[in-house]
Amino acid sequence: MPANATDFTKVLSQTVTRLSETSVSLNNDLGGYGHVLPSVVTITEIIKTLKQLLFPEFFYNNKPSEEAMKHYHIGVDVDRLFSLLQRQIACSLHFNPATVAVVDGIESVSGDVAARTISELPELKRMLYTDIRAIFNNDPAVGNEAEVILCYPSIKAMLNYRFAHLLHRLGVPLLPRIITEIAHSETGIDIHPGATIGEYFSIDHGTGVVIGETCIIGCNVTVYQGVTLGAKNFSLDSNGHPVNVPRHPIIEDNVTIYSNASVLGRITIGHDTTIGGNVWVTHDVPPYSRVLQGQPRSEIFTDGAGI
Amino acid sequence: MPANATDFTKVLSQTVTRLSETSVSLNNDLGGYGHVLPSVVTITEIIKTLKQLLFPEFFYNNKPSEEAMKHYHIGVDVDRLFSLLQRQIACSLHFNPATVAVVDGIESVSGDVAARTISELPELKRMLYTDIRAIFNNDPAVGNEAEVILCYPSIKAMLNYRFAHLLHRLGVPLLPRIITEIAHSETGIDIHPGATIGEYFSIDHGTGVVIGETCIIGCNVTVYQGVTLGAKNFSLDSNGHPVNVPRHPIIEDNVTIYSNASVLGRITIGHDTTIGGNVWVTHDVPPYSRVLQGQPRSEIFTDGAGI
Amino acid sequence: MPANATDFTKVLSQTVTRLSETSVSLNNDLGGYGHVLPSVVTITEIIKTLKQLLFPEFFYNNKPSEEAMKHYHIGVDVDRLFSLLQRQIACSLHFNPATVAVVDGIESVSGDVAARTISELPELKRMLYTDIRAIFNNDPAVGNEAEVILCYPSIKAMLNYRFAHLLHRLGVPLLPRIITEIAHSETGIDIHPGATIGEYFSIDHGTGVVIGETCIIGCNVTVYQGVTLGAKNFSLDSNGHPVNVPRHPIIEDNVTIYSNASVLGRITIGHDTTIGGNVWVTHDVPPYSRVLQGQPRSEIFTDGAGI
Amino acid sequence: MPANATDFTKVLSQTVTRLSETSVSLNNDLGGYGHVLPSVVTITEIIKTLKQLLFPEFFYNNKPSEEAMKHYHIGVDVDRLFSLLQRQIACSLHFNPATVAVVDGIESVSGDVAARTISELPELKRMLYTDIRAIFNNDPAVGNEAEVILCYPSIKAMLNYRFAHLLHRLGVPLLPRIITEIAHSETGIDIHPGATIGEYFSIDHGTGVVIGETCIIGCNVTVYQGVTLGAKNFSLDSNGHPVNVPRHPIIEDNVTIYSNASVLGRITIGHDTTIGGNVWVTHDVPPYSRVLQGQPRSEIFTDGAGI
Amino acid sequence: MPANATDFTKVLSQTVTRLSETSVSLNNDLGGYGHVLPSVVTITEIIKTLKQLLFPEFFYNNKPSEEAMKHYHIGVDVDRLFSLLQRQIACSLHFNPATVAVVDGIESVSGDVAARTISELPELKRMLYTDIRAIFNNDPAVGNEAEVILCYPSIKAMLNYRFAHLLHRLGVPLLPRIITEIAHSETGIDIHPGATIGEYFSIDHGTGVVIGETCIIGCNVTVYQGVTLGAKNFSLDSNGHPVNVPRHPIIEDNVTIYSNASVLGRITIGHDTTIGGNVWVTHDVPPYSRVLQGQPRSEIFTDGAGI
Amino acid sequence: MPANATDFTKVLSQTVTRLSETSVSLNNDLGGYGHVLPSVVTITEIIKTLKQLLFPEFFYNNKPSEEAMKHYHIGVDVDRLFSLLQRQIACSLHFNPATVAVVDGIESVSGDVAARTISELPELKRMLYTDIRAIFNNDPAVGNEAEVILCYPSIKAMLNYRFAHLLHRLGVPLLPRIITEIAHSETGIDIHPGATIGEYFSIDHGTGVVIGETCIIGCNVTVYQGVTLGAKNFSLDSNGHPVNVPRHPIIEDNVTIYSNASVLGRITIGHDTTIGGNVWVTHDVPPYSRVLQGQPRSEIFTDGAGI
Repeated sequence: MPANATDFTKVLSQTVTRLSETSVSLNNDLGGYGHVLPSVVTITEIIKTLKQLLFPEFFYNNKPSEEAMKHYHIGVDVDRLFSLLQRQIACSLHFNPATVAVVDGIESVSGDVAARTISELPELKRMLYTDIRAIFNNDPAVGNEAEVILCYPSIKAMLNYRFAHLLHRLGVPLLPRIITEIAHSETGIDIHPGATIGEYFSIDHGTGVVIGETCIIGCNVTVYQGVTLGAKNFSLDSNGHPVNVPRHPIIEDNVTIYSNASVLGRITIGHDTTIGGNVWVTHDVPPYSRVLQGQPRSEIFTDGAGI
Repeated sequence: MPANATDFTKVLSQTVTRLSETSVSLNNDLGGYGHVLPSVVTITEIIKTLKQLLFPEFFYNNKPSEEAMKHYHIGVDVDRLFSLLQRQIACSLHFNPATVAVVDGIESVSGDVAARTISELPELKRMLYTDIRAIFNNDPAVGNEAEVILCYPSIKAMLNYRFAHLLHRLGVPLLPRIITEIAHSETGIDIHPGATIGEYFSIDHGTGVVIGETCIIGCNVTVYQGVTLGAKNFSLDSNGHPVNVPRHPIIEDNVTIYSNASVLGRITIGHDTTIGGNVWVTHDVPPYSRVLQGQPRSEIFTDGAGI
Repeated sequence: MPANATDFTKVLSQTVTRLSETSVSLNNDLGGYGHVLPSVVTITEIIKTLKQLLFPEFFYNNKPSEEAMKHYHIGVDVDRLFSLLQRQIACSLHFNPATVAVVDGIESVSGDVAARTISELPELKRMLYTDIRAIFNNDPAVGNEAEVILCYPSIKAMLNYRFAHLLHRLGVPLLPRIITEIAHSETGIDIHPGATIGEYFSIDHGTGVVIGETCIIGCNVTVYQGVTLGAKNFSLDSNGHPVNVPRHPIIEDNVTIYSNASVLGRITIGHDTTIGGNVWVTHDVPPYSRVLQGQPRSEIFTDGAGI
Repeated sequence: MPANATDFTKVLSQTVTRLSETSVSLNNDLGGYGHVLPSVVTITEIIKTLKQLLFPEFFYNNKPSEEAMKHYHIGVDVDRLFSLLQRQIACSLHFNPATVAVVDGIESVSGDVAARTISELPELKRMLYTDIRAIFNNDPAVGNEAEVILCYPSIKAMLNYRFAHLLHRLGVPLLPRIITEIAHSETGIDIHPGATIGEYFSIDHGTGVVIGETCIIGCNVTVYQGVTLGAKNFSLDSNGHPVNVPRHPIIEDNVTIYSNASVLGRITIGHDTTIGGNVWVTHDVPPYSRVLQGQPRSEIFTDGAGI
Repeated sequence: MPANATDFTKVLSQTVTRLSETSVSLNNDLGGYGHVLPSVVTITEIIKTLKQLLFPEFFYNNKPSEEAMKHYHIGVDVDRLFSLLQRQIACSLHFNPATVAVVDGIESVSGDVAARTISELPELKRMLYTDIRAIFNNDPAVGNEAEVILCYPSIKAMLNYRFAHLLHRLGVPLLPRIITEIAHSETGIDIHPGATIGEYFSIDHGTGVVIGETCIIGCNVTVYQGVTLGAKNFSLDSNGHPVNVPRHPIIEDNVTIYSNASVLGRITIGHDTTIGGNVWVTHDVPPYSRVLQGQPRSEIFTDGAGI
Repeated sequence: MPANATDFTKVLSQTVTRLSETSVSLNNDLGGYGHVLPSVVTITEIIKTLKQLLFPEFFYNNKPSEEAMKHYHIGVDVDRLFSLLQRQIACSLHFNPATVAVVDGIESVSGDVAARTISELPELKRMLYTDIRAIFNNDPAVGNEAEVILCYPSIKAMLNYRFAHLLHRLGVPLLPRIITEIAHSETGIDIHPGATIGEYFSIDHGTGVVIGETCIIGCNVTVYQGVTLGAKNFSLDSNGHPVNVPRHPIIEDNVTIYSNASVLGRITIGHDTTIGGNVWVTHDVPPYSRVLQGQPRSEIFTDGAGI
């Protein structure tokens, strides 16, 4: 091992050489020199702007007058959101060679998609307010809806998911996933942008919730922390890569799923069903069901031996 | 869809109009123009100051001399904490119309509450050191208590919870919940400020832990990651909103609850009990119990068919 | 309670005195006046530099030309990483009185360890690319490996873990744990730096995963969110502190463990085994096994009574 | 002198005591505990907002579309400017005991003054464009007016002066001077907010220019670097403080004053006059004059003796 | 004047309308929607990078090892400087309609010019070291050359000037002037990028120095604070705009000019001449001259009447 | 010139090589690898702390209560100032090989000097308040002393100078000059730390003022913008470097010097003298003198010919 500064220098310069030579062949190229990747910093800015737009009474640093908010701030934020979004969409399209159809006019397509996304924001706002109402209706601990908007991690997660879902539907690669992963990191709630989720969706606490790409979720569904709506298994294509087919559950209206339950595979959970916590469900469940874990083993012990 | 800049402009300005018109009627008002909401940035600063105050040997950016720390820095931090806290308490009281009793003198009440909170910090410090000791006693992987303070997410969560609980007891709305949600986002541990937790409380790993508003937890209790101490269900009041009554478990002294267990409803887990992981418990458990999941189905397979 | 500014001043100054007097005797000293603790800000910078070094195509803010990246940027980053790392290793060695053997030459030992760590980065990079490949092979939702690098929290967690494990093997105290806790906070994945993990390790979603200090994990192992590989219990030494002995599972090659399963104690899960979700496993499992939760209780109900 | 850490501590704590005891009696009070002084950081933000408002094509970080700029950004900036300005005006009025007439309604007066100031911004913009045109007409080195706006320090100085002059005219204390001192620090041009300056005023280079409080300057006046328009002397009042009477020059239309000239006292420089550089002028100068320094002494020397 | 919030709103919205309508016709266009102007923030970054490159021993935040500095850091800085510079050159060319010859290939021309500029940095470094030596030789107060580099504002001014002069010679509009104005603001030294200045140029103190666009300055010239090398007057073209012809002094080798002297017009100051302070020189001066101000009027007074 | 990216790469890499090879031999070494230079960022922090200490009523971002300020904040600031100062003094001593006497104990000497400096702060505060009073007494435009502290650049300059002078007297190299140059850049006032300046010193406006290293200035002296108290010439030592001997003026009590006057050489300006603006004074002036520039040439012209 090196015993002095000269030896350190030698070790370091050998490592530099080895790291420079490491040739990693990824199975896609990154758009070549000059193409920049989507930026997490900018996307965070996009989400911040979106929150101001959808909840203007809550998230401005210095609350403007109501007049100024309505007439000017919303305009500035929409203009800014469009410009940031167009750029990140363009970066995402450059990144993904699978969407070649648009390559000869990425700037133009990006503008179209950004404008289309923005035109759906009023509907997005309406949907989010149904989620807020659903949480308020499900939680005795909350005093009013404003508290839900300010404090509940599920609102962060749903805002990012519903926005990412818009972009996903319009064919934007990569960007939607980065958006939902930002919420995943902050809240522990991992909803794939491809999932379809109806109105009045409520997640309580939320840490550990996973909702997979091909899930279809109805209205008035409630899930608790640690619930997985996942895949059980998948087939491989001729290259040995898993085939992307519907593989996640369909959850019908008015279903409640308690903490840490795992619901796996392309099964259907019938409407008005309650899934108890900690169960492992891999088969269809009819409407109006209750599914609970088998009885635990229970015994008295006074020997201090532990489990 | 828009094909050029002029069309984009049209789409954007239509969306601005629609978003400006969206009239959302929340079931509380936000204190009117001019009243600012509590600020997450400031509350983060409050928590940072609190950490310096309670663990002065650990969290100063540039460690001062011991003399200066004792005589001056603690004074500056207490003064600063008081001033920041008073302001955030006032914002919280403006926010919540339910606490009208204090509205005619919010500034004065805020000062009282802030001073009262600060006067309890020495006791808060003592409690936190019992938690540190409990973690140290439960984890073979840790070499000393300082490492617990520096590395363990449960200490972050308990510091925020125990401080938020003080404010909650003194009747401050909103602010306590924002404080515990900051810890929830960083650690995945979600403890409601209303919960009551005794000395020597230890959480290991912690991600996914949920402790509900009306929980009562004794001394020397240990819980692992993914444990839920939650509500099973609730009644609705005449407005259709859930009634806030005791609905979470009572956990007596010397109980250990293993990973991912769900303990739900106003049940009592008797003292000196061990709850194994992944169980779903919705009934009282007597003292000195062991509760374990039923035996799994197990089989050998060599066909590669998976589950 | 105080009714005016003078009274506030009195309460505050009394609290200052009480907090200044609080004498907490920790069971290690912190290296005395003048010794600084490791800095989370600097360690975050170390991880950022490491990401640039290992994935230079992805994580530079302003992507340099390929030539400049190979010839200059990697050199600058290695030099910078060495310098930052040496300092944090030295702080960690000052902190921990158990490693007295090196105290008379901490600066020199720190340089040795930092250089040795850096010399293993090419191997670290190779290992991480096996993890990336494993995720790509297991997830139908991902289009290419670059997306895994950019979006998947498990890559963040594995990068921090594999780097921390290097430092842990070389005897560095404290620092490795801070590194894995940074990833824990961002991803909800908690891997102890002492765990041993083979090639092609894949975590999906990941929130709530816990992998304990003495785990030994083979190659081609896959775990899902909420999986615990933990300890069941431990003995105490004569001081009442738990003894640090092997107490976590051995997972052989080609094992898959589904969401929220808890696998506890020094047991062996034989190769080519599948553990279903939500099970509680505390005994050895032979190779080629399937272990699933017992059947849930299921019933139809239409009375709206809930669980 | 101290020889070790203990002694240092003693010296420091003695100094703390002495500095704490130092009782400085200023001849005004600062508005008491709780009243904050105007903030240079906020005032800098005010000036930045003002620049965006007056030169929207130039000073936005991310240039918005022209539509968005006209319809939304100018509105946001006016709203923001009003809010920041009202607050700083209120702080300034609290600071100054001489303006007691408004003390019983500072918030209301501040709003009035801020609104009045904003209503004069269109005229302020017109005046500044005459200054820009004047500089463009006087400098062969500049290619277009946009370059003047982007590069010329005199535009910074004039923007701050003309805005400060508005506030000064409306009776705001302190704030106007802070605004002109910000420009003084950046440009070396020191114009008192009380000075009166006509259209088409041009300063070239500008470092060292001083224009005193009671100056009256006509139209089409040009001054170069180092020019002083100052006071020669003043009388004292019965407290020994100088009396604030007109004591600076009157400069009529179409005057040019070259570098480093000093023009002092309540004298009149007649229109269409040229003052050469480096002269000292303390008496009236009639219109159409040329005033030049007396001939220098000039000699050849080859002895290397210097001056 | 407005008496309440509604009236304020009205005043503000009227001002918004008036400011939005203000149509200012500048005599050049700004490159249309989408073209960004050069950025002072980026240019400041360019100068910071340049200082690191030219004085690597002095200006790195964390001083790297000499090996790393030579082999890697200089490479990174050159790469970065090229990339930042190319972009700012492109912005400047878009800005200026006079340089139409390059408009059809601005990106390519910008790359050429940036590379050419960088290829002259070694010569730039050599020149700056002659300036440093000259200052060291002229100032008894300085102990060594390193102190000159670290403390003397004239080095800041000369670095910016000599770099801006390179860009000016290569035909880059706007950018050179912004670079010298940054130094002007920091140091009070205003050197036009078009001026020609020989080796071993020394400025002491420097505040108020002005060196005009068409100055030609020989070797070993020293100037003190407040010295103007300016224009006396100029002719107008048919549009009434001043004609850009040689109009500033020629200063031959070995000339010293003392504080606050003004030397104006296309005159020649012969070599080995000393110009005393505070003189006004508008005619040629032969070599080996001394030029001093005429004798002041001096008298004794004891009446306290002042000047 | 390069026509494409490959050629650019070649030009850049050649320049890297040339810049790496440039061997500049300075006439002092910089303390070797590992020794850091004083940091302008830290020194700026020192000055900010010093301003809070000396003017606690004015410069805290969030004004603390008076009690807290006296008992705690001043203590924290003194502790912090000591620690920052000790480090910067040590860096300065490492830098300068001329102060070898202390090299074997730089850390200890730095502590001594820092403590000694801090012990003189109460006297420094007293002196600065005489300067504030002097400005207040000399300027009809100022309403109270607080305004002088908040707005006047001369107070910035005097604070930095008087503090730097303390360090200079105690033998600290480099650091004092960096401190005064920071003020020079902000205010245009350049006072050498070696100058000696009595009580009640007043500078008005100040841009361009230069006060040389060996100046001795009495009490109640007033100088205006652009005044130089400089050196006329100097002898060279046997290495050709100027000898550092007394070479700047002695200004006795009660002297006023008007704008842009240059007073040069080791001459004495007798007490109670007034020096008019724009004069060049290189000989002794007896007490009670008035020194004014010779009469300018003045003439009427109406031909528009200019100067």
